[in-house]
Amino acid sequence: MLARACSLTGRTLVANAFHAPECGSVEYLPGIAITVDADGLIERLSRDIPDDAVRLPEGQYLLPGLVDLHVHAPQFPQLGSALDAPLEDWLQTYTFPLEAKYSDTGFACETYDALIDHMLRCGTTTALHFATIHLPATRILADICIEKGQRALIGKVAMDHPDTCPEYYRDPDADTAITQTRALIDYINAHPHNGAGRVLPVITPRFVPACTDACLHGLGQLAAETGTRVQTHVSESDWEHAHVRARTGMSDTEALDHFGLLREHTVLAHANFLSAADMDLIALRDSGVAHCPWSNIYFANAVFPLREALARGLRVGLGTDISGGPIGTIWEAARMSVAASRLLESGTDPDRAPHLRGRAGARVSIETAFHLATRGGAKALGLNVGAFVPGMRFDAIAIDPAAPAGQIVSIGDTPPLQMLEKIIYGATKANVASVWTDGVLRVSPAP
Amino acid sequence: MLARACSLTGRTLVANAFHAPECGSVEYLPGIAITVDADGLIERLSRDIPDDAVRLPEGQYLLPGLVDLHVHAPQFPQLGSALDAPLEDWLQTYTFPLEAKYSDTGFACETYDALIDHMLRCGTTTALHFATIHLPATRILADICIEKGQRALIGKVAMDHPDTCPEYYRDPDADTAITQTRALIDYINAHPHNGAGRVLPVITPRFVPACTDACLHGLGQLAAETGTRVQTHVSESDWEHAHVRARTGMSDTEALDHFGLLREHTVLAHANFLSAADMDLIALRDSGVAHCPWSNIYFANAVFPLREALARGLRVGLGTDISGGPIGTIWEAARMSVAASRLLESGTDPDRAPHLRGRAGARVSIETAFHLATRGGAKALGLNVGAFVPGMRFDAIAIDPAAPAGQIVSIGDTPPLQMLEKIIYGATKANVASVWTDGVLRVSPAP
Repeated sequence: MLARACSLTGRTLVANAFHAPECGSVEYLPGIAITVDADGLIERLSRDIPDDAVRLPEGQYLLPGLVDLHVHAPQFPQLGSALDAPLEDWLQTYTFPLEAKYSDTGFACETYDALIDHMLRCGTTTALHFATIHLPATRILADICIEKGQRALIGKVAMDHPDTCPEYYRDPDADTAITQTRALIDYINAHPHNGAGRVLPVITPRFVPACTDACLHGLGQLAAETGTRVQTHVSESDWEHAHVRARTGMSDTEALDHFGLLREHTVLAHANFLSAADMDLIALRDSGVAHCPWSNIYFANAVFPLREALARGLRVGLGTDISGGPIGTIWEAARMSVAASRLLESGTDPDRAPHLRGRAGARVSIETAFHLATRGGAKALGLNVGAFVPGMRFDAIAIDPAAPAGQIVSIGDTPPLQMLEKIIYGATKANVASVWTDGVLRVSPAP
Repeated sequence: MLARACSLTGRTLVANAFHAPECGSVEYLPGIAITVDADGLIERLSRDIPDDAVRLPEGQYLLPGLVDLHVHAPQFPQLGSALDAPLEDWLQTYTFPLEAKYSDTGFACETYDALIDHMLRCGTTTALHFATIHLPATRILADICIEKGQRALIGKVAMDHPDTCPEYYRDPDADTAITQTRALIDYINAHPHNGAGRVLPVITPRFVPACTDACLHGLGQLAAETGTRVQTHVSESDWEHAHVRARTGMSDTEALDHFGLLREHTVLAHANFLSAADMDLIALRDSGVAHCPWSNIYFANAVFPLREALARGLRVGLGTDISGGPIGTIWEAARMSVAASRLLESGTDPDRAPHLRGRAGARVSIETAFHLATRGGAKALGLNVGAFVPGMRFDAIAIDPAAPAGQIVSIGDTPPLQMLEKIIYGATKANVASVWTDGVLRVSPAP
């Protein structure tokens, strides 16, 4: 019996599976039987194969679903363009005008529908979304994620600072930003079709420069009161990092902590210019980082010191940063996380002597990238997904390396770990054959 | 009449076309009628559309075929793997053992067949190939390119230095390397099915460290005698650059010139550590550079200063460097050429002050990347392709941005130049609908 177009709740799937429950190593589980219960939880892993087991098609591999820790859902239309301006100009020139269009719920419906289809088809089963300031459009994004089955955390963007946000696109005041954030939390938590809470709300101050102190303070209180997770940006670029220090006298990280926003499972996007003390504070608070290696190339002026962050015990996952990153797949983020770490280690300027060019010991492995793309992201969010472990939810993808429109090259016998490396470097949407969340098939291969 | 599965010799094609005949700018030619003569040359461009014109399907765009200036054809099986060792170790540990397997012509047939199919399907209509030391397998690569229609330059690798090349994989002496290079030149030039010389031989000393002085000298003489083009590597990594200086007392570029290998249309792969004098010498000799931005991340220890090279008048094109680069498409090389230039400009280490981090003025635009991927590569090779200009050969690809397995995102009206940017950042094999060389259809879309 094949897995094509088949949900797995209450069934057992037999597959050649890869996962990376711990950072830095990968487990290959050939011919493993994974039993999924009626609620979509992994009940057990076994070598005993029941007669009625479902089998993944020959040649396909099972991987945990990908986790995207940083998505600006409304920026999807400009994906792969508008990459020529520094962050502060990019926001005003391209991005705020685009986000403002989501006052039109019809536009929101069309765009968010296309985005969630795209992400699922690329293998992203969990996403942490920034929406816009608009409550109605943000509700629509939640509705669409619930309907299509993406595990998602969705935030109404709070941004009320008149000095940095244009009049046509900002919350009119801190109270409105906070009240509407609360309204979104209530809407999602009370949603009649949101079963086991696959979609969650997230408190979302855009970043310190875009919010007044009153707004940041109120959102911190709301997080403490409701236990809702928080996401924002931190120390992304030279400009942002310096702006926050000039305004608050603190580092960006310290300022967020001051406002009560650095909490367990807070996710901080970018985090390129953290000091060692910032990193330690983030680790102490059990917050985490969304590493966005593609976007950082255009907007950050530096590479996130990923290996140092991991060594200091930070929880780290990967983000596409649609549309700051030009390519909206976690495959791309994973390979670029390795490549960026190599460029940090070697440096880039050939006119400098080797020992003055880079930062020794900065590289990470493809195994680490695979962990970050799956279980690492899930741990940052505190979600029970990202590996094939009894008690975790069955969010998974089937990869067909030989898909004709795909680019993965495998000639002759390829050992399993080499195959995983080829998958991480080569996979595109074309290789994603099936996608499940909570054991339910969400994307099935073309017939 | 649609272009699906249709050759264009003696016909007129109507298409929305992009090309970049000059570096740094792009021309959009909406609804242009391109007439191709019986030999596959572009006869004229016109706004007058004949009744029997062929039309590209709605929504597709016509681009010049992509030019890959650096391919190690035999390394195709390890594409997307084996990226964890420095150049000198990588050669001995992974690459020489793999290349040695091409003494088996059956293995060569299978692998080269798959490679050329893959490259054409990804849109690469012209490629500059390193083969192996084996004459029979290298003839097979030429046969396959001729049969499948890839415009290709093919070199038997010359490598005879006993200190750097293992006994199991090297030319036994300089005479053999030179004699067999000559034999390949004769074989390709006399090939009965090689019509207008779409496939050409290329003299291919692997790099200075792998060749004795006698070998380099003899190959230089052979180039002068026969007028055959030359390709090799230059100043790729700290190790290679230093090795050549220690051995010859000259820079790598000067050494190649000394041996008569720096000639018109010589293509030098990588070239990361060129001095200004090296660049000027390359420009003076009308040689060019194959910029391999992905491979450089793993093996070069630095970023090629592309913008400086262009400013000094060097001819530059792009190379995948299969398998030093993990992804075998020129789309990837094009987007990474932009990204790498940004990382050279900004630098990578966040602990350094901004003005000490990078190299000002290093970035290149997506328009420049598109030129390098097409006409730039063709100019380096001295080939009459890469743009839609009367008198050039019609090597072209049709791109379908909306291909279901593709990743290009276009919602609503997208202005033409934004669409091109989205294509360069997003295109994969899945978006390549049709491929022509010399006006003959080589790849047609799935029905």
